[in-house]
Amino acid sequence: MKKKWLLVSLMFTTQVVIGQQSDSAFFRSLSDEILLNSRAYENLGFLTKKIGNRLSGSASLSTAIEFCTRLLREAGADTVYMQKVLVPTWQRGGAEEAYVMDKITGKRVLNILSLGGSVATTNKGLEAEVVEVESFDQLASLGTRVAGKIVFYNYPMQPVTINAFTAYVDAVKYRTQGAIEAAKLGALAVIVRSTTFARDNNAHTGSVRYDESIVKIPAVAISTQDAEWLHGQLNKTTNVRIALRLQCRILPPSTSYNVIGELRGKSFPKEVILVGAHLDSWDVGEGAHDDGAGCMHSIEVIRALRALQVQTKRTIRVVLFTNEENGVAGGREYALMVKGENTKHLFAIESDAGGFTPRGFNFTMNESQFSRIRQWQSLFSGYGGSDWQFGYAGTDIAPLGEQGVALAGFLPDTQRYFDVHHSKADVFENVNKRELLLGAINIAGLAWLVSEYGLEK
Amino acid sequence: MKKKWLLVSLMFTTQVVIGQQSDSAFFRSLSDEILLNSRAYENLGFLTKKIGNRLSGSASLSTAIEFCTRLLREAGADTVYMQKVLVPTWQRGGAEEAYVMDKITGKRVLNILSLGGSVATTNKGLEAEVVEVESFDQLASLGTRVAGKIVFYNYPMQPVTINAFTAYVDAVKYRTQGAIEAAKLGALAVIVRSTTFARDNNAHTGSVRYDESIVKIPAVAISTQDAEWLHGQLNKTTNVRIALRLQCRILPPSTSYNVIGELRGKSFPKEVILVGAHLDSWDVGEGAHDDGAGCMHSIEVIRALRALQVQTKRTIRVVLFTNEENGVAGGREYALMVKGENTKHLFAIESDAGGFTPRGFNFTMNESQFSRIRQWQSLFSGYGGSDWQFGYAGTDIAPLGEQGVALAGFLPDTQRYFDVHHSKADVFENVNKRELLLGAINIAGLAWLVSEYGLEK
Repeated sequence: MKKKWLLVSLMFTTQVVIGQQSDSAFFRSLSDEILLNSRAYENLGFLTKKIGNRLSGSASLSTAIEFCTRLLREAGADTVYMQKVLVPTWQRGGAEEAYVMDKITGKRVLNILSLGGSVATTNKGLEAEVVEVESFDQLASLGTRVAGKIVFYNYPMQPVTINAFTAYVDAVKYRTQGAIEAAKLGALAVIVRSTTFARDNNAHTGSVRYDESIVKIPAVAISTQDAEWLHGQLNKTTNVRIALRLQCRILPPSTSYNVIGELRGKSFPKEVILVGAHLDSWDVGEGAHDDGAGCMHSIEVIRALRALQVQTKRTIRVVLFTNEENGVAGGREYALMVKGENTKHLFAIESDAGGFTPRGFNFTMNESQFSRIRQWQSLFSGYGGSDWQFGYAGTDIAPLGEQGVALAGFLPDTQRYFDVHHSKADVFENVNKRELLLGAINIAGLAWLVSEYGLEK
Repeated sequence: MKKKWLLVSLMFTTQVVIGQQSDSAFFRSLSDEILLNSRAYENLGFLTKKIGNRLSGSASLSTAIEFCTRLLREAGADTVYMQKVLVPTWQRGGAEEAYVMDKITGKRVLNILSLGGSVATTNKGLEAEVVEVESFDQLASLGTRVAGKIVFYNYPMQPVTINAFTAYVDAVKYRTQGAIEAAKLGALAVIVRSTTFARDNNAHTGSVRYDESIVKIPAVAISTQDAEWLHGQLNKTTNVRIALRLQCRILPPSTSYNVIGELRGKSFPKEVILVGAHLDSWDVGEGAHDDGAGCMHSIEVIRALRALQVQTKRTIRVVLFTNEENGVAGGREYALMVKGENTKHLFAIESDAGGFTPRGFNFTMNESQFSRIRQWQSLFSGYGGSDWQFGYAGTDIAPLGEQGVALAGFLPDTQRYFDVHHSKADVFENVNKRELLLGAINIAGLAWLVSEYGLEK
């Protein structure tokens, strides 16, 4: 390992080394190192298959924290430590059931998942007529006619939208806000069409919001196939009634940790380039793409730079945040801690869009910073990550953005992400090794460039 | 369907319509039409699940030809016809077996597939010592020491190569040429490591070449995991012997057909834009990515343009070639036919790199043509297909290229392709609906632009 980068360095000392040329040679070394020697994929296999999903407050999240602490040490981080974070603790509980009494088929069980944070029904459950709406406007037009009923939000992710994240952001408001809006009108519960392009029988969970001044009603996601079936039933029958029983529990907050590992910068050790992802996941599937992949990307940045014996000018700090999925307590606590630190965070990169084939990055920074980094863009084109634009960078690093830190979000291809997102399909088998490693190459390359050259002209 | 494009047209007649703006609006309509109304994915499901794989000479290829003829008619082609092509006919036959007698485990069966076109062993099979080589140079250095033995080519697709096609082209020479080179030195058979990045137990077939002046020896592909196992055995034991039995058959050539459907151009009907793919496949898996996806892309070009009531200026001709995999008889016969036709082929696009998320196109054309089409490149960026470069366009259209026709090859992301290519993993389940449809959007967009504006300044 050591010899390789040295060899490349020697090769290039015989030439006039201009910036881009040596950067390009370094990218090649980074790429070779990662494609030949990374264990990111195998470690993701352990995280997903041996530890499993990792909801805030779960024992498996604690195990994952220990595992990733070890990985960061093995990767060669100079320092590895944990930051204590109090996280909300919600459990799906035992029974989780919804069905329609169908005249022909009898009890027709629906594929549902409680939304994260949902309140339970009573132990007996509830039963009520279902009212379908496609929008909040349609809900408002029904007004209190939905009182005493179950509101079924059946708004699909719009198929004509090319970027799946754009389609997700458009549709997910019914999952996040739906319970509040329906409860205002007296509804008893909400059933929300899963936010996915896929047509299958996996329900996709995710957090629901409540307003403390409005009654909290049970909220579930329904699979897209069952949403279509229910839509059909409602078109041909009046008074379709659904029985719903949830045993979710909200427990007192638990102690969790952000896991932090760093490579100390040789020239400006107080200047920090953060590379992060979140270690928690929902409690279905294995949290493979969301966001085990991002954690492995991040750890790989340290491993690869260390393996190449690179001493970065600035400090590269990997942060595996806790509790992104239902609280963002990890991201918020980290941003608070940074305020009290004797460091300057220059730049933060988050990988929380899956481990698919790289496309580029979204940036949240000023025009001057963006024009500076644009000169590096062509370095990424051979590695798939040269589609650069202004855009949302990531939930865990957003609190740093509020403090003026320049941000980037890694963008893999979006098409397959919501097929698996927050569902039992988010498993290791759906991650491709080379796609995962190519992500790490692009992220490591960007972190290294900012570490070497900074963001100011 | 009809109303939609009209509506978009009306929206833009109130503005000053400059070229790019109306082209961009048309791309949007094309995209909406395909994402909302395409049956390409469902039709691929029928082709793969109901008809199955489609080797030249098979009954299933004939069924697929009928099926696609029907699809082209239903898509609204003005003319649908078939071009008769004589194709080689090879069959895998019954037994196909390779094993090592292992001291510990006893008979250790190896995951192999006869290479397409391979000769059989005798009915009893053969048994011989195995000699591993990593290159033709190493083979040459062994010289006649491989006589009477089985040569095991264990050259992997190079993991440091980012573009999987580049890695494939580098490695596949051992599959295509390996039997000739080994036979020259008196070897009895060859076992070739599968050309894939994946580490699993699927062997990947593909054609083997013979030289009529050199004895033809049996040739098989071995799964990468078994290649690694065999490599380990050879490192720890001398005289590892493999028993090999193949019953492949070469039958007389059969009659097959290229399937052709066209939308007649309204201004220059004699000028043809060809959009093509190949309908045959290997006889393992379902030929889903290779090349059912390309066939569905091609048919969708006609369906979508017709649904939008577009009358193209030039003729758009879809050709589903037969026999790409083991002979290219379809591509050659088509190019011969064209010479006798009263048409001018301006441009040919092939989709034979899978149904994965779009990246761009490879072009084979002159600088002047390339600089002309480059002005359209930005239209593709919202649809994933804006990575444009000079490069190899496709096997079926290569004979047209020799006649001076400008060529393009559709390039989806390459990372997952060789995981499935020519193996039992090339099944419908590995195709993503939206990725497939995005491919069709990019191909239809490019075909339409050339039809509207031509390739000359």
